[in-house]
Amino acid sequence: MTGRVSGEVAPVSGAEFTGAELSESVRATIETLPPEIVIVDQDIVASYARDQSRFTDSALPAAVFAPRTTEEVAACMAAAHRNSVTVVPRGAGSGLSGAANAVAECVVLSLHRMTAIREVDAVNRIAVVEPGVVTADLRARVAADGLFYPPDPGSVEFSTIGGNVATNAGGMCCVKYGVTGDFVLGLQVVLADGRIMRTGRRTVKGVAGYDLTHLMVGSEGTLGIITEITVKLLPAPRPAQTLVASFPTLDGAGRTVSEIARSGSIPSMLEILDRTTVQAVDAASGMGIGSDTAALLIVQSDDVDADAVLARVESICRNFDAEDVVLSSDPMESAMLLEARRLALPALERLGDWLLDDVAVPVSRIAELIESIETIAAEHGLTIGVFGHAGDGNLHPTIIYDESDAGSREAAISAFDAITRRALELGGTITGEHGVGRLKARWLTVEHDETSAAVHRAVKTALDPTGILNPGSVLTS
Amino acid sequence: MTGRVSGEVAPVSGAEFTGAELSESVRATIETLPPEIVIVDQDIVASYARDQSRFTDSALPAAVFAPRTTEEVAACMAAAHRNSVTVVPRGAGSGLSGAANAVAECVVLSLHRMTAIREVDAVNRIAVVEPGVVTADLRARVAADGLFYPPDPGSVEFSTIGGNVATNAGGMCCVKYGVTGDFVLGLQVVLADGRIMRTGRRTVKGVAGYDLTHLMVGSEGTLGIITEITVKLLPAPRPAQTLVASFPTLDGAGRTVSEIARSGSIPSMLEILDRTTVQAVDAASGMGIGSDTAALLIVQSDDVDADAVLARVESICRNFDAEDVVLSSDPMESAMLLEARRLALPALERLGDWLLDDVAVPVSRIAELIESIETIAAEHGLTIGVFGHAGDGNLHPTIIYDESDAGSREAAISAFDAITRRALELGGTITGEHGVGRLKARWLTVEHDETSAAVHRAVKTALDPTGILNPGSVLTS
Repeated sequence: MTGRVSGEVAPVSGAEFTGAELSESVRATIETLPPEIVIVDQDIVASYARDQSRFTDSALPAAVFAPRTTEEVAACMAAAHRNSVTVVPRGAGSGLSGAANAVAECVVLSLHRMTAIREVDAVNRIAVVEPGVVTADLRARVAADGLFYPPDPGSVEFSTIGGNVATNAGGMCCVKYGVTGDFVLGLQVVLADGRIMRTGRRTVKGVAGYDLTHLMVGSEGTLGIITEITVKLLPAPRPAQTLVASFPTLDGAGRTVSEIARSGSIPSMLEILDRTTVQAVDAASGMGIGSDTAALLIVQSDDVDADAVLARVESICRNFDAEDVVLSSDPMESAMLLEARRLALPALERLGDWLLDDVAVPVSRIAELIESIETIAAEHGLTIGVFGHAGDGNLHPTIIYDESDAGSREAAISAFDAITRRALELGGTITGEHGVGRLKARWLTVEHDETSAAVHRAVKTALDPTGILNPGSVLTS
Repeated sequence: MTGRVSGEVAPVSGAEFTGAELSESVRATIETLPPEIVIVDQDIVASYARDQSRFTDSALPAAVFAPRTTEEVAACMAAAHRNSVTVVPRGAGSGLSGAANAVAECVVLSLHRMTAIREVDAVNRIAVVEPGVVTADLRARVAADGLFYPPDPGSVEFSTIGGNVATNAGGMCCVKYGVTGDFVLGLQVVLADGRIMRTGRRTVKGVAGYDLTHLMVGSEGTLGIITEITVKLLPAPRPAQTLVASFPTLDGAGRTVSEIARSGSIPSMLEILDRTTVQAVDAASGMGIGSDTAALLIVQSDDVDADAVLARVESICRNFDAEDVVLSSDPMESAMLLEARRLALPALERLGDWLLDDVAVPVSRIAELIESIETIAAEHGLTIGVFGHAGDGNLHPTIIYDESDAGSREAAISAFDAITRRALELGGTITGEHGVGRLKARWLTVEHDETSAAVHRAVKTALDPTGILNPGSVLTS
């Protein structure tokens, strides 16, 4: 969630390829490529070793490839394939699951130079973009034409659309609008052996063949490298109206979320902050939300009848004993009401080292999950703040620990496992939007049955027979 | 679009398995199964030979399996796999692409006995259903709880949800709500060798592993047999308001559709009937829509501000020289205004034998496609009526010909090819919602590149290594 990979980095000259530290296979791979897309400078290469995850392994990559076109990506992969060199694709490196972490002897293939927005079509409501476009830039560009690209992961200001597609990123909009994959119509993909493939279409509908587009979405760079994305757009929404409600009991907040869903309202945002998070925000900001707040709900509607939607939501909140309920239709005031949500992670980060986790459960079970996490925190002697997308059951337990203290780190990992297990027990999933990566690869076969695991491996083998693409991510290696 | 497979059919007794006409491998397969799920009576078996498509090959199946549970489906597939018997899965047999057509020496596996709606959850807005549930029955069942399952293929009253998922069926709602696949959260699938797999999840969001759910959606029974479906539901929509506008020029209607899209309105229905279809409806019904109508648009909105949406649509229609524009917010009147659309196919069917085609183009190109089809009709000396889902660019050219006249049949096939080619030239797809099946398998590699075709085959081999599942559908055999 923090940090941003700098845009252009100066490539080293071809002469430096002779560095003794490079294996024969990496050297042979590099030799066939334009020197200006190869980086071997160890200081620069080192900055491509990891994403923003915790508890994941990484290694120093042998080199970084920074291709500028699909054809250059294809050349990189063809050369890597010929020489059996492992390749780890990378967007902005802002991921939280270790899916972009380098492995030993690998090359990191960074898409940061492919930043063109090739087309925005306001009648057919599509855009065609390169993977290195920062998602916020895409949103701003299409907004200029009165259009809306909804997905808004927390990293929207610095993550890239390619990484968003590769991880099927979510965000706060999803309760109404859906996730990244819901907006992907077609892709251009470079396969592990360098072949180039188009998937999907430019039309609204289309069922010609297998859905290879969505096989690629969320595959975290293990099946191919996405070099172009055709996204679906919506008309620009109305400015949202906002409601904030504080609850003296977690149960009241949980039942409010369920009742909003049951009542047939679909807010454009429905976020929750638990007691620990509210207290952290209070401590960091002096907002004074209240020490007896067990949970805070933040609700937005951008419907044409947002007044009526939020009036119904307010009435539900009050039925479940909300104490303070504040509404605003003023954009400035709305932004202020969102401040507590915006501060959730920064406020928790101040408390120590942190792991931002990501699980999802059925909407009706979120209060149970938060309650279980309170117990897990107490049992492990840790602070764990929970916030997230209550409206779609996707929560981000944030574990605070001390990285320099082996006992604390061990407790954090144990709590992480306990939370993941609990989410599954509640009918949920190990990851709602961050992805499996290396962090949760060992959990994949706990969530999915043996046959599914076998099919995952069969698909991986079908697309990447020699296993050079991002080994150890999604599937344990 | 016509015909309905009768529900239960009387199974034959085990004694009849000795019929001399069965091959050794089919007999060996049958012997391991409960007799009450095996049908070998030739008269009954013959009724499972084909779906509703034209221009597709079929054969008499050796037997029909009618399993009642996932475990029985698994037993069927395990036995077929052991004996290398080809299996063609079948829903209601209402498909239009030949994807359920039997091939020589095959067994048809019909899901018509698996009709349970296992669960409807109004808080988490999901339903869990067996594949043999008629889609209209699912819609009615969830409507009783104030919920909405949007997909509404033309066959909604007799096609089944399993077939809808296997073909990723669409309908008139898609312009606003999306297609079947957009509502599928998870599946239970029996693989070609009889192993049982769960895919997906019950939560709104989830990114754990590859999207095997949507790999199965639209795979037309070539990768596995769907035995349970978890669908996402929406709150019940408001009653729709309706507008009908007739245009003296096709261009005016086409530009109206583009302008509605560009203006940011998303109707809940936006259908078009071309001149040929309007004349057929007039002739069949005496509605008197007008002999100088070049195209008719039918628009609905179920938005809370449907009045305002349709007022904007009306103004756009008038800007592009619509002659008659009629609006209604009365449900009875709205139903009457839809009558022309409802009669489109029945009216064209009266003119002779017919092939109901299905292509999609970008919304901005529909007038060009219809114009080209007029030319193609004239060149081939055929009547071709075009109607369909203008709002998402998905049209159904309906070719009228004489099946008993070899020349006419040849002309129809040639026109069919010309329409498919033209859709691709306009940036479209060979099929918007009916699927590839056997009808368009030879076109798949025209739409998709060589690498995509190779990946299709690699995925097929990964999931069905011996190729016993529905060979010749989607991919040419």
